[in-house]
Amino acid sequence: MSITTTTFRTHNCGELTANNIGQTVTLCGWMDVKRNHGGVIFVNLRDLYGVTQVVVKPENPVFKSAEDLKSEYVLKVTGKVSARPGANANKGMPTGEIEVEAGSLDVLNVSQPLPFELSEHAGVNEDTRLTYRFLDLRMPRMAKNLVLRSRLSQVVRNYLYALDFNEIETPMLTRSTPEGARDFVVPSRNNPGRFYALPQSPQQFKQVLMMSGMDRYFQLARNFRDEELRSDRQPEHTQIDLEMSFVDEQDIAHVVEGMMQAVFAHISEEISGPFPEMEFSDVMLKYGSDKPDLRYGLEIKDCSDIFKTSAFKVFSETLAGGGVIRAIKGEKGASFSRGDMDKLTDLAKKHGAKGLVWLRFKDGKFESPTLKFMTEVELAALKAMLSVGEGDAVFMAADKPAAAASCLGALRNELISRLKPAQIKKWAFLWVRHFPLLEKDAESGNWTFTHNPFTAPMPEELHKLDTDPGNVRSCQYDLVLNGVELGSGSVRNHTRALQEKIFALMGYDKEQVQRRFGMIVNAMDYGAPPHGGIGIGYDRLIGIICGTDSIRDVIAFPKTTSGACLMSEAPSTLDERQLKELHLKIEA
Amino acid sequence: MSITTTTFRTHNCGELTANNIGQTVTLCGWMDVKRNHGGVIFVNLRDLYGVTQVVVKPENPVFKSAEDLKSEYVLKVTGKVSARPGANANKGMPTGEIEVEAGSLDVLNVSQPLPFELSEHAGVNEDTRLTYRFLDLRMPRMAKNLVLRSRLSQVVRNYLYALDFNEIETPMLTRSTPEGARDFVVPSRNNPGRFYALPQSPQQFKQVLMMSGMDRYFQLARNFRDEELRSDRQPEHTQIDLEMSFVDEQDIAHVVEGMMQAVFAHISEEISGPFPEMEFSDVMLKYGSDKPDLRYGLEIKDCSDIFKTSAFKVFSETLAGGGVIRAIKGEKGASFSRGDMDKLTDLAKKHGAKGLVWLRFKDGKFESPTLKFMTEVELAALKAMLSVGEGDAVFMAADKPAAAASCLGALRNELISRLKPAQIKKWAFLWVRHFPLLEKDAESGNWTFTHNPFTAPMPEELHKLDTDPGNVRSCQYDLVLNGVELGSGSVRNHTRALQEKIFALMGYDKEQVQRRFGMIVNAMDYGAPPHGGIGIGYDRLIGIICGTDSIRDVIAFPKTTSGACLMSEAPSTLDERQLKELHLKIEA
Repeated sequence: MSITTTTFRTHNCGELTANNIGQTVTLCGWMDVKRNHGGVIFVNLRDLYGVTQVVVKPENPVFKSAEDLKSEYVLKVTGKVSARPGANANKGMPTGEIEVEAGSLDVLNVSQPLPFELSEHAGVNEDTRLTYRFLDLRMPRMAKNLVLRSRLSQVVRNYLYALDFNEIETPMLTRSTPEGARDFVVPSRNNPGRFYALPQSPQQFKQVLMMSGMDRYFQLARNFRDEELRSDRQPEHTQIDLEMSFVDEQDIAHVVEGMMQAVFAHISEEISGPFPEMEFSDVMLKYGSDKPDLRYGLEIKDCSDIFKTSAFKVFSETLAGGGVIRAIKGEKGASFSRGDMDKLTDLAKKHGAKGLVWLRFKDGKFESPTLKFMTEVELAALKAMLSVGEGDAVFMAADKPAAAASCLGALRNELISRLKPAQIKKWAFLWVRHFPLLEKDAESGNWTFTHNPFTAPMPEELHKLDTDPGNVRSCQYDLVLNGVELGSGSVRNHTRALQEKIFALMGYDKEQVQRRFGMIVNAMDYGAPPHGGIGIGYDRLIGIICGTDSIRDVIAFPKTTSGACLMSEAPSTLDERQLKELHLKIEA
Repeated sequence: MSITTTTFRTHNCGELTANNIGQTVTLCGWMDVKRNHGGVIFVNLRDLYGVTQVVVKPENPVFKSAEDLKSEYVLKVTGKVSARPGANANKGMPTGEIEVEAGSLDVLNVSQPLPFELSEHAGVNEDTRLTYRFLDLRMPRMAKNLVLRSRLSQVVRNYLYALDFNEIETPMLTRSTPEGARDFVVPSRNNPGRFYALPQSPQQFKQVLMMSGMDRYFQLARNFRDEELRSDRQPEHTQIDLEMSFVDEQDIAHVVEGMMQAVFAHISEEISGPFPEMEFSDVMLKYGSDKPDLRYGLEIKDCSDIFKTSAFKVFSETLAGGGVIRAIKGEKGASFSRGDMDKLTDLAKKHGAKGLVWLRFKDGKFESPTLKFMTEVELAALKAMLSVGEGDAVFMAADKPAAAASCLGALRNELISRLKPAQIKKWAFLWVRHFPLLEKDAESGNWTFTHNPFTAPMPEELHKLDTDPGNVRSCQYDLVLNGVELGSGSVRNHTRALQEKIFALMGYDKEQVQRRFGMIVNAMDYGAPPHGGIGIGYDRLIGIICGTDSIRDVIAFPKTTSGACLMSEAPSTLDERQLKELHLKIEA
């Protein structure tokens, strides 16, 4: 017996095989396709689990009502499972060996004519799909995404429970902290003028849980950010959030690597560990990005030394001013036209470069508008350093290190997209480690945290906090998969003295720290253990696994980029009574 | 090797036994208790998993720092596991056979003097406990509650996954529906004057998931209600929410009963199924409550027939006016004093009764202020009906059926509390079925839903919708455990015509239905399957299992009854910039 058996049905529409031939079964589902072949009606009955062919013969009393069936009518069919005649068996369909000869056929519900053909939903305007999400989700592609999302969440939970983690629910109605992204806020009717905030992450509560002795915490947590939306952003998103006591960076990495191996094993993909890891400074040098897509090679090389005596003014002045010259090879990029090269130059400029030097290697020699500024020795050294071969192109940026990195990083992505180089691996995980603890805030000129105000400095760099805070590396790490920043975590500060020292560097006095972060610094006063953790974007992870560019395809009821739910028409206006009870007035 | 092994520690504080004797181990944890016995220091080191005794001998270089240890210091101890000398073994402690002879001892963090003795936390003012929740949660009683809550959530998930359910996350930022309890709302910065609402339950979205073909949905969902709070209410609470397609009431009951059996099996309690079920009308008659505590007998009896010729004016007038006379026995209640009886009478009046008739059966005969109004025949019949024995008391209410039920139901609870009758069973589950579909709204005089506007009428009572809507029974059921309403569910309407008809009875025209419930009625237009489900209060369930009266004891970071988080000081004020961005002004 199937576990979906109910008083309504004996089987689902995806499970009958030749083993069931001769049985009388009852199925429920939706009228997917109907064909009338020489007086016999064939109905494809669909549910979440599959499709079964139902046959209604002309002599059947329900034949007339079968003729009237329309798309998406809800049916209950009782009948006998029989073998499909040899030639009609459909090997491509799990239930293709059999069909059900309808005895009775009940219409449980009807449907209006559909706003779009369901089988063509992927081509429909997304607003229409979101307005009729209940139809969109009936399509196997979408349903499979949601089922896989659901099943993988259980894989994650089973894995973490086996490692003694406990899932602990942290509050959704929390306190607003003006740092970081904008909070969504919730007026408190019982406390006029006061507001809760929806959590941007359970960060502070999970640290307090470590200080509460809970040892290993996780949560598939809903997080909220009131930001401008993009295709990979939603106002609410789900995070695999975890935190552990008495650990270092490597302990946390092992837990996360094992989790990813378990998740990918579920989709029959083997992931080997430990994952490669790079220092933040190295990854910026080699790939010009803190989230490089390492499915591909395309390493950036520093060729400053090659050009240290260059007569090319752009190069010599850059080097004299403390800048660098870096290059990346585009394999088979010699096919780029002048027009292509102009577009790539524009892209480099958009990412802060003053310009882009390019060379094509054709018929055994370089060609470039700037060829005349380079010596044979320099060109030979460049060719050797980048292993330039026939038909390749080389792109060079001469700039301050950060600008050269950013411009060649963007160029690298564009070369991958245009040249489609061979993948070195299918799933390229990478740990990027030891981000700077602090950076200058562009607006105020103060030091501010790069990721998280609670991140610990690397112990061996503590002494630089007083003398050179901008060069203190931290225990902050990102997990990158296929060029997407999947998660971010750190080992945290666990003493109040160090936490206050870092806040002081950011310009907060003790009173401000107490007011804004009182909960966590108070808890640090009473025996906070060393601890650390990570938050991993679950929507993004599932999006990558499902092979979609839009996380809206892996969320049941997503919002549009303007934050609207087209199906429920949220957000909506409140009535006067509600506003009055909340002591609020709308300002134009 | 323990699964909590990290670079910091080799074992946790709860797992070392005689099998580990001779091993060198490293433990981390909190200084729980320190004793100095004749120059040897014994430290109880505590973590989530247990307590291990650490011994520091006077010749040890760390002896001096061990002397300085204070409560809740965080320690890392490396040393050798040795047997406790025979007489010192502690059989009551899982690690009682061994102790760890400290080699090295590192203080990982210190603690300020504590605001209260942790071991006495249960006696501390709850506001203090909530302010220092990170200390409160370190106590084994609280930590065990959270761990059990976590583990049982995984039992629930494993059970539902095995039955082909999928956990699907529904939105937290939804649309406000002015029906029912008050919504918490969230202003939308991008849509000035518009608000999201936090969900009171995923009700509409889970029904839409059924209409999306998702077949079997569940979610451990966070729900929000802006109500006046009580000890069993929190502004946010967790619900095991589930919905199934192609099911009837019994299918849903089987799933829930199996779930409860799995949950209780985890705490070694056997629950037998199917659970008893009663019609709503019967349960009100027999127990005067729709959530009776059936761990106890104490059935209410209707004795109207016995008194149909009564000369007692209170009785005869009640019966003549369509009222009833009902009685309940309090075993050993004859010990109640006059003062007790007055208090019970006050309770009855508070619950809407005009008064309470009581009798004591002592020395083989009844005594009562109203004895003179009753005949020997009546008393004999009453005695037989209630099986009154020596030392028992009888309480009677003469009133309209609803008032008699409500008053004797309240009295029943009070008798259970005062007389402490023997429990018939430890875990008394009960299904209460077929609540009325509609009731009169006290304020407007209109029909309104008793539980949920989407509940289906019983099919056999559909014809009464036009003629006698107040007497239409519905497919609405409550699950009761030990006198607590644990959950509420129903089979839903799945056709738009029936749903609109019921809304029409409540006074909503089509335009209002479209505006307020557009999402769900639109989805009903396109092939909605028959479906039903339930939502089960997870905090309450865990509270009952943990044996606490306050759900705050099973929630990591609860709010006070005024909706405040004393630890994070939420809710808080916003700064002017935030208010301005949200286009809001606070009204005094």
